[in-house]
Amino acid sequence: MLEKRLPADLGRLSVEALKTSEKLPLVLVLDDIRSALNVGSVFRTADAFAVERLVLCGITACPPHREIHKTALGSVETVAWSYSPKAAQALQQLRSEGYRVLAIEQVKTSLALQAFVPELGVRYAFVLGNEISGVSQGALEHCDGALEIPQFGAKHSLNVAVAAGIAVWEFVRKHRLSGQ
Amino acid sequence: MLEKRLPADLGRLSVEALKTSEKLPLVLVLDDIRSALNVGSVFRTADAFAVERLVLCGITACPPHREIHKTALGSVETVAWSYSPKAAQALQQLRSEGYRVLAIEQVKTSLALQAFVPELGVRYAFVLGNEISGVSQGALEHCDGALEIPQFGAKHSLNVAVAAGIAVWEFVRKHRLSGQ
Repeated sequence: MLEKRLPADLGRLSVEALKTSEKLPLVLVLDDIRSALNVGSVFRTADAFAVERLVLCGITACPPHREIHKTALGSVETVAWSYSPKAAQALQQLRSEGYRVLAIEQVKTSLALQAFVPELGVRYAFVLGNEISGVSQGALEHCDGALEIPQFGAKHSLNVAVAAGIAVWEFVRKHRLSGQ
Repeated sequence: MLEKRLPADLGRLSVEALKTSEKLPLVLVLDDIRSALNVGSVFRTADAFAVERLVLCGITACPPHREIHKTALGSVETVAWSYSPKAAQALQQLRSEGYRVLAIEQVKTSLALQAFVPELGVRYAFVLGNEISGVSQGALEHCDGALEIPQFGAKHSLNVAVAAGIAVWEFVRKHRLSGQ
């Protein structure tokens, strides 16, 4: 019989322990995300996978915000974040700090997500764009490349928080759980 | 310079072509999902990855529903679905049809998602449960096993639509994109 694990069995970190624990060398940049519910959901994903930090840009809502809290479920307390009005400037800054900046976007030269292998010792930033228009051309100009999630349907688009989750999972799996 | 692909370049299938195209041997069972926005988001993921069909159970909202349509963006037209009041009955039915039924849940004997390898020729059903309480004990009793998404944060939970996206992606990657 399948028996659920109790919260005490899940090995959750305390908020304080999490702040000093090893983070994934990955920053998520959210550019012009319209829905605060999506922002909250990305906060939750960032907590779950110990993402280094979030950079919220443009019209993306910032905490404190009722709808972010609704889906973030406390993870705004555990995930580091900053706000930058212009994504282009934030990406320039990240690149000057040595981050490799990759858009999660359907671009002519994008690499299929499953073929992406994070390079050891390199810190990455993944850029996620607006729900309708995706990563803006202005932001793409400051990216080193793009990763694309292959899709096989009629709509050819995923919810942005789901796309972020898949991209971060793939990074975690290859970076932290490699060999499995 | 990174240049976005135009919709015509994305190889999207028409709604008619999608109906006859090869589907992933994977059914998603949504049991007692409280948020219709999450249901819509899962429809969109199911379209993107050509999931066979959805089985909506219990309190899970069904189309037509304003909030489902808000996040499904037309994918309720392309994804097959049915409704079953009791998840346990739906899972018994799936097992009698030969599906291997796996809960996406933190269970004592769960297999880490990255270690899961879909068996060729086997059709699977993944069960996703309520946002607060997860997959119910009643539904777990009709599962062949459970898959767990490893997490490293303080909250130890992902949004259910994000968890569904990650689990389906892992299935797609291993089943359809294997070797990559």
